[in-house]
Amino acid sequence: MRDKTFLMIPGPTPVPESVLLDIAKHPVGHRSSEFAKVLESVYSDLKYVFQTKNDVIVYTASGTGAMDAALSNLVNPGDKVLSLVIGNFGQRWAKIAKSLGADVEVIEVEPGKAINPQELKDRLDRDVNKEIKIVTLTQNETSTGVTNDVKTLVSYIKEHGALSVVDGVTSIGAMECKMDEWGIDVLISGSQKGFMIPPGLSFLAASEKAWEVQRKCTRPDFYFNWETNRKSVIANSTAFTPAVSLIAGLKTALEMIKEEGLDNIVERHTKLAKALREALRAIGLKLFVEDDSIASTSITAILPPENISVPDIRKTLKNDYYIEVANGQNQLKDKIFRMGTLGFVCERDVIMAVGSLEAALYKLGHKFEPGSGVAAVIKYLNK
Amino acid sequence: MRDKTFLMIPGPTPVPESVLLDIAKHPVGHRSSEFAKVLESVYSDLKYVFQTKNDVIVYTASGTGAMDAALSNLVNPGDKVLSLVIGNFGQRWAKIAKSLGADVEVIEVEPGKAINPQELKDRLDRDVNKEIKIVTLTQNETSTGVTNDVKTLVSYIKEHGALSVVDGVTSIGAMECKMDEWGIDVLISGSQKGFMIPPGLSFLAASEKAWEVQRKCTRPDFYFNWETNRKSVIANSTAFTPAVSLIAGLKTALEMIKEEGLDNIVERHTKLAKALREALRAIGLKLFVEDDSIASTSITAILPPENISVPDIRKTLKNDYYIEVANGQNQLKDKIFRMGTLGFVCERDVIMAVGSLEAALYKLGHKFEPGSGVAAVIKYLNK
Repeated sequence: MRDKTFLMIPGPTPVPESVLLDIAKHPVGHRSSEFAKVLESVYSDLKYVFQTKNDVIVYTASGTGAMDAALSNLVNPGDKVLSLVIGNFGQRWAKIAKSLGADVEVIEVEPGKAINPQELKDRLDRDVNKEIKIVTLTQNETSTGVTNDVKTLVSYIKEHGALSVVDGVTSIGAMECKMDEWGIDVLISGSQKGFMIPPGLSFLAASEKAWEVQRKCTRPDFYFNWETNRKSVIANSTAFTPAVSLIAGLKTALEMIKEEGLDNIVERHTKLAKALREALRAIGLKLFVEDDSIASTSITAILPPENISVPDIRKTLKNDYYIEVANGQNQLKDKIFRMGTLGFVCERDVIMAVGSLEAALYKLGHKFEPGSGVAAVIKYLNK
Repeated sequence: MRDKTFLMIPGPTPVPESVLLDIAKHPVGHRSSEFAKVLESVYSDLKYVFQTKNDVIVYTASGTGAMDAALSNLVNPGDKVLSLVIGNFGQRWAKIAKSLGADVEVIEVEPGKAINPQELKDRLDRDVNKEIKIVTLTQNETSTGVTNDVKTLVSYIKEHGALSVVDGVTSIGAMECKMDEWGIDVLISGSQKGFMIPPGLSFLAASEKAWEVQRKCTRPDFYFNWETNRKSVIANSTAFTPAVSLIAGLKTALEMIKEEGLDNIVERHTKLAKALREALRAIGLKLFVEDDSIASTSITAILPPENISVPDIRKTLKNDYYIEVANGQNQLKDKIFRMGTLGFVCERDVIMAVGSLEAALYKLGHKFEPGSGVAAVIKYLNK
């Protein structure tokens, strides 16, 4: 059946119809006064979502573009960078830093675990000569469905004096992330996640301390240059022709976010993910992240039942129920599957997804009580 | 009146409805088999439009992103780059090259003129030690409406042995540009021009010779790295999450381009621009580029009548006739205005634009025979 696909991957996420309709309009001139008004609204609302007074730059690029922009404006060859790695996206920070000639040290934990804040603190305490200039971390690790305790980690980094560079791609607009209050130095995100619009835009904000380091960075950067881009933000413009259609959609999506309110959005994500976890346990599935305190509220990683393969589950969900869920990445491929409850998702969607997953598993021969997953969702949501 | 704006700026250009509707659909998963099929079609059709056997990389970024990608993958500090500058976009190549630490020499002509191929040849002939590694040039200079003779210029660059790096942003899909036949080494373009889709994507193709230089480039580049991106092109994928909605629209737009045929598209652009120039002369306006042999067939720059200002013309066209035309840039601001006849534009659009420009000028007190512009269009198109 055409036009029935429902995305429960970690992104792109479902897009509200009013956003799609804004994106569908004829593009406006990017130097027109109408578009300046759109940008004014977008730049202001982005500060609300980032919980910051800093300007938020909008790049026409995917999230990785903003990651590249973050480090390439800060790192000089030989700089010591400490990368906290709990999965593929944490690893990406380390790769970018290395490609820039940084001296990269990695604290890595096995997939499914979070960084132990004490371990970071101990490492930073040992750095008495303040050699570590930058610490990179991931709030929500998309590849494993684990959330780091960014608030605590950043507080240690701040205490030490290094810059904290945080990937908020699958966390901002879904989980609590208070840039200014927590003292995050550089925070980036992407459009196709909590922001509820299609991929193509990414966002970056930097603290005054980060800007000082940027000014001393010797590496040239034309397209991603912070300074050139911020000048345009201040003028309600963009340095280069942006994806105007996506920005038109972003304006509407941000208005929806403000209308619902960040606190309510965080609560909704928490509730939906917990309901999903209850359901998965009820139908006899094992969660990849058993520890509820570090489990992501935007992406849930699940082990398949014995004797049923991840590809079969994904194929059945897709072909018979038009629901897309993600495979594991790299070494986790075919070992786990991942369901997103990220962005424009409501209780009904979780009921539908759990019911469909039950149906798929039933077809594939999994032994369980059909309906027990949906029952668990209903009970959890109404307790 | 809402929803009536018609863009005759040099980009974004009008977008066909079927493309808009594709863009409006719920985004698909970027790692799905459906999307791989979309990319397969897009990558194949891009080769047709670029007239090349080389792989064409699609960046989620504006045209400037692709310019940055072109030079940052080639230039090592100290490399000698010769930039042929006939306006702002030619200047941008020089700026990017300088930011990368290149030793940049500029051949610049006054706005409204093209590069004299003989001047380039003389300079290259004097470079007996082959110090010049790269020559940057612009096929169609958007800021002035002048087209360079890329075929001849590139032939001299090839003879010399340097790499030719060509900005085809407002030329590809509008004017003749044969990458392989002419021997262009690096060719870039952007989505919101001849490609008839909104801004947000840009394209880059490179010759084998350019790839050899890329492999020796010491500068790190993560997001724009040619190699990482090409690997994904070959696999009908993308290195990072792309703007899937724009790519869905691009597929349809490329199918429309193939259906019409590149030769017919070039002929249409030539005819429409010439009809517009006839009309402008008929209503007593002076063309910024009088020489028909170098005048762009996608953007026409026009001097306002004495005593009527560019802002007044633009405002009247926009407020009363909902047509957007562009101002001049930098030192040409308020000295010229620019009308695009680029992309999804037909004879009716030129008739409408000329008639509306006549109406605006009539209101603003310009002395001329009303209707003479439209008459000139009709006669030119039917001769």
